[in-house]
Amino acid sequence: MKKYKVCLVGIGAVGTEMIRLLKKHNFPMESLTILARSEREEVIDGDTYQVKVASPEAFEGMDFAFFAGTEGAKGASQTLGWEAVKRGCIVIDNGDDFRMDDRVPLVIPEINAEALKHHQGFIANPNCSTIIALTPLAALHRKAKIVRIIASTYQAVSGTGSSAIKELEDQVKAWAKGDPIAAEIYPKQIAFNVIAQIGSEKEPGFPSEEVKMLRETRKIFGDDTIKVCSTCVRVPVFNGHAESINVEFEQPISPEEARELLKQAPGVRVVDDLSANEFPTPLDCSGVEEVLVGRIRKDPSCDNGLALFVAGDNIWKGAALNAIQIAEALVAQND
Amino acid sequence: MKKYKVCLVGIGAVGTEMIRLLKKHNFPMESLTILARSEREEVIDGDTYQVKVASPEAFEGMDFAFFAGTEGAKGASQTLGWEAVKRGCIVIDNGDDFRMDDRVPLVIPEINAEALKHHQGFIANPNCSTIIALTPLAALHRKAKIVRIIASTYQAVSGTGSSAIKELEDQVKAWAKGDPIAAEIYPKQIAFNVIAQIGSEKEPGFPSEEVKMLRETRKIFGDDTIKVCSTCVRVPVFNGHAESINVEFEQPISPEEARELLKQAPGVRVVDDLSANEFPTPLDCSGVEEVLVGRIRKDPSCDNGLALFVAGDNIWKGAALNAIQIAEALVAQND
Repeated sequence: MKKYKVCLVGIGAVGTEMIRLLKKHNFPMESLTILARSEREEVIDGDTYQVKVASPEAFEGMDFAFFAGTEGAKGASQTLGWEAVKRGCIVIDNGDDFRMDDRVPLVIPEINAEALKHHQGFIANPNCSTIIALTPLAALHRKAKIVRIIASTYQAVSGTGSSAIKELEDQVKAWAKGDPIAAEIYPKQIAFNVIAQIGSEKEPGFPSEEVKMLRETRKIFGDDTIKVCSTCVRVPVFNGHAESINVEFEQPISPEEARELLKQAPGVRVVDDLSANEFPTPLDCSGVEEVLVGRIRKDPSCDNGLALFVAGDNIWKGAALNAIQIAEALVAQND
Repeated sequence: MKKYKVCLVGIGAVGTEMIRLLKKHNFPMESLTILARSEREEVIDGDTYQVKVASPEAFEGMDFAFFAGTEGAKGASQTLGWEAVKRGCIVIDNGDDFRMDDRVPLVIPEINAEALKHHQGFIANPNCSTIIALTPLAALHRKAKIVRIIASTYQAVSGTGSSAIKELEDQVKAWAKGDPIAAEIYPKQIAFNVIAQIGSEKEPGFPSEEVKMLRETRKIFGDDTIKVCSTCVRVPVFNGHAESINVEFEQPISPEEARELLKQAPGVRVVDDLSANEFPTPLDCSGVEEVLVGRIRKDPSCDNGLALFVAGDNIWKGAALNAIQIAEALVAQND
């Protein structure tokens, strides 16, 4: 089996999990190079990595470059992404700079791996909330055609990055000691609070996260008629995004049919039994590759509607894992 | 001004705030008697109260009885409510035992105070999530007629009662110390997690909280055609329920019109400026009498739709305050 020279740009919350998942998946690597703003050593799970400075030349001879695309690595794909492509490297970018670019496929492998067939060397990983909603919804879309999605999210601080994880930790510890609570990363205290604005205002009334969910859903499903309205909310959870979703279909689909389709769907695990207190939670989905889906029921407020609740590891399936699955799909395609 | 003999049944999270709010509002009280399961002394804000045992006879001569209706007082209105009415006392019940009873008006004073005109001595306080959603929605319903409500809630542990507040505190403190975390009140850990099931399964797929939101909305608005689908979720917040709401109207209504109507609406405060990070939060609504409403925008996924985000103090407007406002409306009606 061919082995690949892999590099990783950025080593925050997502980059670290990319390293873990490349190992967990036995991704066929000849070498793993870590690039960042500054040269240093990083120890991850007991292994020491020599971090090199990211530059166009650093991509010479590389096969795959994963841009981790959170704080620290933000903007790296803008300056270096196409430079890497020019040097024959396939870029998989977790950031949102090129997701809506016509040259760039936006891929959830379980849904639209075929979009990888004619790539131009640069592939984008969708937004975490979009991936976690669409991975289960795709199975229902194929059967009954989605016409409208309404989503309200419960998003973990790990989606913002390591500094936000620390902010929640610090705020909770300050509270436990009776000390004053400081907010720096988020505009308001996140401990024991919820923040109904993720990203800055992108369109009147809509923060960037909500605009992403609309645009990316249409691009991934290849259907500009799908209607989407989301309300994206940060909650005091370390890891794991949950979403409450109401979805309307062109064709009728019963909760029982939906549950059966979801049980067969790749990348999805059904967790749905109210009487046994079984439903998806952020804690239960953390460190799990599948998106959990439950609370599957008829939406009594519309025809052909279902309501459901999903939870997925935003750093894994919502970012690092999906990126690696894209690389795996490309490797399989080349075999 | 006439003064009233008031009694309070149950002295948990809601009962305590009822005492505070009766004082804050200068409710015209001749006396305040506290009834519970057992005789004891309770000190609240430095004042000592002699708690008496609740019995049918305890209501003799009373004008108003507030049944606090959370744990501890649960079921008290079933055994004692109509006994109190028989003795000439007006019962205002925060519990859900009689909310859908035809003899019992279900009242949010800003919305349907007229339902108090022909009461039979027993009035029900709606569910907290219902009150917090409908108080702002009522102003829009009057203008454009609501046909459908989709709500996803972010509910605080105080809605469960004092024991749940303690459970969140204990779990967070155990986490801060690195100790194991125990869950007793909730079926799963609530610290750093969200729980998408509030109440036991009432109808297939629907826990009781979600069934309440549908039935109570129709009764309060006096319109059995309104469609409601809610997903009720507990979040690790001490106090203040938030809700993400998508609402569809018979008539067109713009976000600007909605904002103006909400600015005039009683019991509502508009907090809505994304560029200034102004939107409703649980922390900001706690200890505030109004329901905060913001994120007011057109729902791009349907005609005549709006999306908005609300937050209200579930123990105040969601319970104790609304009950006292009912009593105030009755007092005003008798004047």
